[in-house]
Amino acid sequence: MKTLILVRHGESAWNKLNLFTGWTDVDLTENGVKEAFEAGKLLKKEGFKPQMCYTSYLKRAVKTLNQILDAMDMDWLPVEKNWRLNEKSYGAIQGLNKADTAAKYGDDQVLLWRRSYDVQPPALEDNDPRNPRNEERYAGVDPKLLPATEALCDTIDRIMPYYKGTILPAMEKNDQIIIVAHGNSLRGIVKELRGMSNEEILKFNLPTAVPYIFEFSDDMKLQKEYFLGDPEEIRKKIEGVANQAKKK
Amino acid sequence: MKTLILVRHGESAWNKLNLFTGWTDVDLTENGVKEAFEAGKLLKKEGFKPQMCYTSYLKRAVKTLNQILDAMDMDWLPVEKNWRLNEKSYGAIQGLNKADTAAKYGDDQVLLWRRSYDVQPPALEDNDPRNPRNEERYAGVDPKLLPATEALCDTIDRIMPYYKGTILPAMEKNDQIIIVAHGNSLRGIVKELRGMSNEEILKFNLPTAVPYIFEFSDDMKLQKEYFLGDPEEIRKKIEGVANQAKKK
Repeated sequence: MKTLILVRHGESAWNKLNLFTGWTDVDLTENGVKEAFEAGKLLKKEGFKPQMCYTSYLKRAVKTLNQILDAMDMDWLPVEKNWRLNEKSYGAIQGLNKADTAAKYGDDQVLLWRRSYDVQPPALEDNDPRNPRNEERYAGVDPKLLPATEALCDTIDRIMPYYKGTILPAMEKNDQIIIVAHGNSLRGIVKELRGMSNEEILKFNLPTAVPYIFEFSDDMKLQKEYFLGDPEEIRKKIEGVANQAKKK
Repeated sequence: MKTLILVRHGESAWNKLNLFTGWTDVDLTENGVKEAFEAGKLLKKEGFKPQMCYTSYLKRAVKTLNQILDAMDMDWLPVEKNWRLNEKSYGAIQGLNKADTAAKYGDDQVLLWRRSYDVQPPALEDNDPRNPRNEERYAGVDPKLLPATEALCDTIDRIMPYYKGTILPAMEKNDQIIIVAHGNSLRGIVKELRGMSNEEILKFNLPTAVPYIFEFSDDMKLQKEYFLGDPEEIRKKIEGVANQAKKK
């Protein structure tokens, strides 16, 4: 049996402040750190033993993974960080308050940016310090690949080469792999694994710091998928995420 | 200019308890976490920008590196963990109190195990759970390479292939590299870099969580080396380590 574990990072400071985050490198809250550690304790208790870890270039994901590994007593596991696992870029509205943005551009427009499959928010200018082309951390990446804004479809298109070219092949020699990333970047992988339509994936909300387990046969046929943890708590977390997305 | 940054992990729980640690995977103390974060803040303040990080399979080193990267706001940096950077194995006396061990084997014998260049403590039995051959984390390593005990010379011999085969070549494409490891594993690298004799390296004590900077010309000729931080504080830390080694 092969197992893929997906985990969305714990609560971040900007989740709380209701700002568009995207590629902004905001930290976990104290609660986010705790959530992540709890996820690790649960994985350990249930006997999971990943052999390889993947995460994004953003600290809320990296630090969630660090907490999980620490709780599992597996700090030594190999970790590969890749920019392709980053959250969806919100372009020029990154760092803006969601309510302010709605006031400026109108509710309908903001709703499209947030909840359509293929409408991009306004792009970051080339000289904007928020543009990843101006950030040292992305210096090793072909600038043409770095997004100045993204719709969900772009995020998914950007993740797939890494998922299919690096992570899936790694499952040949590893029985268990864990990916710690973001709400929208993980949507790409979930859509692929579950064969969801564009509509379905838009409605699908991942709870923070809840291990989402995919079990495969040795020839990588999906056998089952489930969230690890107390169903009632998970339901509340998913509703919380869905409601946050509705809030202005 | 090329820069190599060596950092010995922060204070660990067993440093405090005066136990032989070696390959035992003990955690940092609260003070150790703080020391590590301070080292990162200092590196950031002084403008260091490593591009690649190396650490051991032991959590006191991994977590020291995590704290440093967090303080530098560089959580995204690539990290490679390797068992060859682990601390010197103390074999069968791992986990024993230093005073008890002296009472059992005699002061002179214990002094030899701790401070000679080439005398090994008693080896771990094959079926000892402390033997790395019985640990999952080393399952990917050729068992013949895994030590059941080590003298300092063995530790150095085990590190060198990784230092020369992986880290040094990585300096060709990276201007700055950081290695977070252990008192004895780093001694191997310091001995090599400074051309120290066996006697000299035995007397050389690295302070915990103080960045030790080696600057090279582009063709890797050593230009200078220094500890980063307040000289008086560093002197006290080095004396503390040296005195700890004298304590029974």
